[in-house]
Amino acid sequence: MIDVCLLGTGGMMPLPYRALTSLVVRYNGHEMLIDCGEGTQTSMRQQGMIGFKQIDVICFTHFHADHISGLPGLLLTIGNAERTEPLLMVGPKRLEKVVNSLRVIAPELPFEIRFQELSEAEESFMWEDLRVDAFRVNHNVTCYGYSLLLPRTGKFSVDRARENEIPMKYWNGLQKGNTYEEDGHIYTPDMVLGPDRKGLKLTYCTDTRPTPLIEKYAAGSDLFICEGMYGEKEKEIKAIEHKHMMMQEAAAIAAKADVGEMWLTHYSPSMAKPAVFMDEIREIFPRTIAAKDRTTTTLKFSEE
Amino acid sequence: MIDVCLLGTGGMMPLPYRALTSLVVRYNGHEMLIDCGEGTQTSMRQQGMIGFKQIDVICFTHFHADHISGLPGLLLTIGNAERTEPLLMVGPKRLEKVVNSLRVIAPELPFEIRFQELSEAEESFMWEDLRVDAFRVNHNVTCYGYSLLLPRTGKFSVDRARENEIPMKYWNGLQKGNTYEEDGHIYTPDMVLGPDRKGLKLTYCTDTRPTPLIEKYAAGSDLFICEGMYGEKEKEIKAIEHKHMMMQEAAAIAAKADVGEMWLTHYSPSMAKPAVFMDEIREIFPRTIAAKDRTTTTLKFSEE
Repeated sequence: MIDVCLLGTGGMMPLPYRALTSLVVRYNGHEMLIDCGEGTQTSMRQQGMIGFKQIDVICFTHFHADHISGLPGLLLTIGNAERTEPLLMVGPKRLEKVVNSLRVIAPELPFEIRFQELSEAEESFMWEDLRVDAFRVNHNVTCYGYSLLLPRTGKFSVDRARENEIPMKYWNGLQKGNTYEEDGHIYTPDMVLGPDRKGLKLTYCTDTRPTPLIEKYAAGSDLFICEGMYGEKEKEIKAIEHKHMMMQEAAAIAAKADVGEMWLTHYSPSMAKPAVFMDEIREIFPRTIAAKDRTTTTLKFSEE
Repeated sequence: MIDVCLLGTGGMMPLPYRALTSLVVRYNGHEMLIDCGEGTQTSMRQQGMIGFKQIDVICFTHFHADHISGLPGLLLTIGNAERTEPLLMVGPKRLEKVVNSLRVIAPELPFEIRFQELSEAEESFMWEDLRVDAFRVNHNVTCYGYSLLLPRTGKFSVDRARENEIPMKYWNGLQKGNTYEEDGHIYTPDMVLGPDRKGLKLTYCTDTRPTPLIEKYAAGSDLFICEGMYGEKEKEIKAIEHKHMMMQEAAAIAAKADVGEMWLTHYSPSMAKPAVFMDEIREIFPRTIAAKDRTTTTLKFSEE
């Protein structure tokens, strides 16, 4: 079960009812932020269900101010929430330099910050039980998207347990992932489980032109959160020039990647009502949502 | 005529309905900000009447994050508003270093930033027709209050003009502040004006224990904006320890300084409703307002 809340949906500059870009993901009592523009911590407070102390990881797509300007204040608030465990930051090269430069106004924190700078086009790391894939996209500075994958083991199979002659006293423990040894035999979880089931997948991507890696990582996502900076056809030149994405382009990727649902985000300040474009966009990809600040969902394993 | 809008009234951390500390002052189409915490630019937008391009000066009391965290984003927004004239920043020593460090995420701006670092306990500079006095207060880092004074010349006096034998053709020009020379005589505005009249005075002071310089500069202010971090008697120890001010202490200063009105600001995040303390505080100084974000007024010369 993964809780997902889009804290801010604005690009460029914060507006009274639209904070700058930020996403929070909660899994098993732990939290990850992706991006942290101005208004992130205020939006977390408004959402009301998310704690500051539990933030383990903050990933950055890139270092334009609308994606990181809320960081120094947030770090102080996390400190005030008495976090003492290290906090991991992940982002493009220069991450440590940029963050330390911003910390001129947040020099003293009760927790350590660890930095992991991305240098390859595709990199992975583990966060709790989730695999996080960072993939480089195509903006006017180095920028990454992130895809989170929570795998799911197969169902317990009495047939397989019997085939593999597993003593019944181990069946429960093996289902829980334990391994046992008895009389020279080693019993492992895969010996009682059917084939892996579909896990949960969340992909987040903003500030980029369409590029093949987005479709690769978005493929099969339960939720694909994607920049839709503009909806008006005449803004396409601007989108191309500044390396942003049209809502129509995001929807085309969502359709090809066959995602469960797409949330649009990172709206231009000039776009007062993203929802007005939805009739057109849903012709390209029907399961599109014009997300607002604090649009929230919970990704759950299917019943099967 | 001076417009005053308290953009944010929060201390420490931004809350959903309380931005961090910031004040905007508008005079004759020009604007000055004092402090610029997270939420400043959003509050300016909500206020709706204040332009970004017109900000000429930003004064900082000190560099704790709640007073400056909104700066990099604001600078970008001022740039987006196409300001090209230089912008002056005033604040304690290290100002240039701190601002440039924050500008790691706002490196390119279409206007020049000029820095004026304060080093004396009391310093003055001119902004348009106003004299700005910076005065050092007593916080746990170097911190200044600011007092703005708009002087007002005396009324035109026919008697004085006649006494001084001023040709009538210069009366109008002299009233407007011009000087004339004719046949070896020099005619100056003071020769046709009565004694100076009461000007307008605004004093802003936050993050400090009570100290004599506050009373000195607040004296006679039309509006005194002052920190009232706590109202509960039991928080006094905390106020002393962290060098903040109780509402009661602010009111005592306002009473001694005989100000026109006092607005309290910079509330602790723990204080949900500053207004509940007003009955008590108004016994100390009756003309106290528990300011909220975007409490606004216009200071005007009296009719006389």
